[in-house]
Amino acid sequence: MRHLIDFTDLSEQEWQRLYRRFEEIAERPGDYRDALRGQTLASLFYEPSTRTRLSFEAAMLKLGGGVFGFSDPAASSVSKGETLKDTIIMISGYANVVTLRHPKEGAAMAAALYSSAPVVNAGDGGHNHPTQTLTDLVTIRRLRGSVGNLRIGVCGDLKYGRTVHSLLRALARFEGVSAVLVSAPELALPGYVKRSCKNLNLTEEPDLRAAAGGVDILYMTRVQRERFTDAAEYERLKLRYTLTPEILREAPKDLLILHPLPRAGEIPEAVDNDPRAAYFDQARYGLTARMALLLELCSLPPFTVKEPEPGGGTACGNPRCITQTEPYLPASGGGVCRYCEHPLVTPPGV
Amino acid sequence: MRHLIDFTDLSEQEWQRLYRRFEEIAERPGDYRDALRGQTLASLFYEPSTRTRLSFEAAMLKLGGGVFGFSDPAASSVSKGETLKDTIIMISGYANVVTLRHPKEGAAMAAALYSSAPVVNAGDGGHNHPTQTLTDLVTIRRLRGSVGNLRIGVCGDLKYGRTVHSLLRALARFEGVSAVLVSAPELALPGYVKRSCKNLNLTEEPDLRAAAGGVDILYMTRVQRERFTDAAEYERLKLRYTLTPEILREAPKDLLILHPLPRAGEIPEAVDNDPRAAYFDQARYGLTARMALLLELCSLPPFTVKEPEPGGGTACGNPRCITQTEPYLPASGGGVCRYCEHPLVTPPGV
Amino acid sequence: MRHLIDFTDLSEQEWQRLYRRFEEIAERPGDYRDALRGQTLASLFYEPSTRTRLSFEAAMLKLGGGVFGFSDPAASSVSKGETLKDTIIMISGYANVVTLRHPKEGAAMAAALYSSAPVVNAGDGGHNHPTQTLTDLVTIRRLRGSVGNLRIGVCGDLKYGRTVHSLLRALARFEGVSAVLVSAPELALPGYVKRSCKNLNLTEEPDLRAAAGGVDILYMTRVQRERFTDAAEYERLKLRYTLTPEILREAPKDLLILHPLPRAGEIPEAVDNDPRAAYFDQARYGLTARMALLLELCSLPPFTVKEPEPGGGTACGNPRCITQTEPYLPASGGGVCRYCEHPLVTPPGV
Repeated sequence: MRHLIDFTDLSEQEWQRLYRRFEEIAERPGDYRDALRGQTLASLFYEPSTRTRLSFEAAMLKLGGGVFGFSDPAASSVSKGETLKDTIIMISGYANVVTLRHPKEGAAMAAALYSSAPVVNAGDGGHNHPTQTLTDLVTIRRLRGSVGNLRIGVCGDLKYGRTVHSLLRALARFEGVSAVLVSAPELALPGYVKRSCKNLNLTEEPDLRAAAGGVDILYMTRVQRERFTDAAEYERLKLRYTLTPEILREAPKDLLILHPLPRAGEIPEAVDNDPRAAYFDQARYGLTARMALLLELCSLPPFTVKEPEPGGGTACGNPRCITQTEPYLPASGGGVCRYCEHPLVTPPGV
Repeated sequence: MRHLIDFTDLSEQEWQRLYRRFEEIAERPGDYRDALRGQTLASLFYEPSTRTRLSFEAAMLKLGGGVFGFSDPAASSVSKGETLKDTIIMISGYANVVTLRHPKEGAAMAAALYSSAPVVNAGDGGHNHPTQTLTDLVTIRRLRGSVGNLRIGVCGDLKYGRTVHSLLRALARFEGVSAVLVSAPELALPGYVKRSCKNLNLTEEPDLRAAAGGVDILYMTRVQRERFTDAAEYERLKLRYTLTPEILREAPKDLLILHPLPRAGEIPEAVDNDPRAAYFDQARYGLTARMALLLELCSLPPFTVKEPEPGGGTACGNPRCITQTEPYLPASGGGVCRYCEHPLVTPPGV
Repeated sequence: MRHLIDFTDLSEQEWQRLYRRFEEIAERPGDYRDALRGQTLASLFYEPSTRTRLSFEAAMLKLGGGVFGFSDPAASSVSKGETLKDTIIMISGYANVVTLRHPKEGAAMAAALYSSAPVVNAGDGGHNHPTQTLTDLVTIRRLRGSVGNLRIGVCGDLKYGRTVHSLLRALARFEGVSAVLVSAPELALPGYVKRSCKNLNLTEEPDLRAAAGGVDILYMTRVQRERFTDAAEYERLKLRYTLTPEILREAPKDLLILHPLPRAGEIPEAVDNDPRAAYFDQARYGLTARMALLLELCSLPPFTVKEPEPGGGTACGNPRCITQTEPYLPASGGGVCRYCEHPLVTPPGV
């Protein structure tokens, strides 16, 4: 791993080492307060994100490092007229590690082509968000002792919920994981995600009560308004599944309730005092996991960037792809866009 | 003191210890540059405030700590859809101390219910702003040797000026303080504030010149446009009282002129070079006072939050109260809202 | 040098010392990670500027110092109603050094009158931007061994391009520098700039290919849309000069291509892999140069501000001058505004 663009960039050994780091920091955080002294994190948020940004910045500060960057939507207009390439070349020359959040899919992958410092994808449009998956896995292992041989229920928006897609793909790398899919038919898990999780035992269970009764972990997610063109359909679906105290009365005593947060009503405040509610611990572990990641990335041997030949001409049909706004990017070739992973359009007659 | 929500949260001993700290830091600031190394301040500003925010952030940095957070109005929309409770639980898990500025009255009190780190109220609507009062008191004691046995003139907006209300209430805890109230009738000190300052000797003097002639300290405040619905009335009142060099010619040689700043004309620049003008020293002492406060709060024994049962149903009639937007908050009970301190509306027939 | 408002504030000895510092830091950056520990930079940006702001903030962090301030346009409205004087007096009391970016010409000079900490001008309207010139000179000396006896081509917007004006004035302080001016007639170097560069050997060459063939350094600049009232004229002129690979094929093998960045098409991405392209090194040296500057300024003996008598009444005719919005500023006198350097209007009959 030189950059963390997608969770699958982590090899098995890297995951193991990262988890050991996480445990060490969780045990003795004070030992790390000077670990990255004199080093800097460039925190580049082209769209707002309070939770992700602050967890990375706090992580760097707790390691003794410094943080600079921008956080407001205005910042995107600030660097307007400048290519992502030029911004990244400049800023990666100032920093030991870069976290990037960008509205365009594939932006982090594109940035990594030009960055002289490790790039962490803090969200590229609705595409990837690997440190959320990292947070989910360390939380599961920390609270259960291991990730394998697990029954997990995932509930809410399984269609657009990238957090769920990324988590399921990551779980597919472990043995003996079965996942129970709980969603409205309109928000069911897409086929292409199912196909990428062959190693998982997937079943569907429309009844949340039944699902909660038979799993070790219940992973709730919110329905995101921004995914819907039809406001009425959003209103109809958003609270289709609510994890009430009454449902939880019959659920296993050792169930773990997770949620990537923020929530939007699918877990009422009345549940927060339930000892099985682990989503606030999950948020706290997210900080420690990011500390472990920053430590790993800042200890990589320095690398020099082999500047790719400017290409352009990639025919990605995805209007949200970074190639739409950064035309100099090297072409993808192959059948899939190397940035946003959408199928490439082949011009007729070629 | 676990949190600083209102200046009266400080006990007599805590005030004494805090002042000693202040003096030590003022004498040897260099001794403290590593005092909070490895610790972090979460600076959460849901509405803009340059002076207060920067004085807290500079204070933390001068103690060797780190700062993260948000400062722009946009930030409130950033965390939109998330409750204050969820934001505070997450962020207080990342920080050793939290400073909160919020447009709603009672927000800091509400945040303190859920925070695993000490919360400092950096302004909750027009309600409280305890570190301004702390700044005023350390300045008075630093420049006069003591706070008691003092004649102070307070001039400007005594009706809406919360800084003045809070200062007078704090002064009422000392012996032998008499206050001369200088204001237009439309901006006179409200009766409920007078009643909460029984220990003060209050007199009214509409003539600034006469008042300035008979006091040890003259505390000027500005008239805030945002308090007026009628622009014409604001224009008529804003410069009703201006502290001119000509007035000061006849004032005592050892008078101290204070102002919480920013000013809006009530003290002309021509006064700045007068040796009695102490408002810029006051601003500088505000930084040292906040350093002392952060040191105290970060040295508190760690505490675990006893999550209150979500309540709701508090019938606070104040439209600017935090309970209007955070419905899960525990009910107040008693006659007064526990958050914004407004009288509670009792539903008819109860 | 107490403040850096204009590059000419640097004496010959100060330039030499600054460059030695720059070289030391470039050789052993790690030696400086605690150089400014416990010290703070106030980063005050009244208008957005990603590159300049981040390079200063990263520089301070790499020296072990802390950074606070504001960066968003909103910040100007935040401190609205407060004079620049009051803001600077307060904030310079919190910081060891202040970087100021402000839309009004002369703002940094005005701020320096009241600041108890060294002020660095990070851009005052279109007026001065001395650390860009510092960056240009250290880059030239670093890559060529010396600044004197140099043939430099400057291309693009020579009329409004303040970077070019400031660079040429600085180069005029060295021996044996000849400059080739490449621009459209509408964007030619103004006479008053030529007159201030007497020591330079200036020639005009409308053909970029010819110019590139005969110089040691080619300094490209972009045409800035915001300078044009007529959008059509901007479109016509913006890419009048483009440094193509084809032009570069015939240019000297040891040519150095510089650009202050950001660029807007005048240097195509295809040039970036050319070994003569030095503009990304230039950006990186800008960070080191600012580290050297901050070190020098923070090692100055403390100074106390002699508050100028508030004056006002300066009759500067420049609508973009800081005196237009800060009326209390001391009068200029003489023929030229002391803040924005525009000729003063003398009221008729005086």
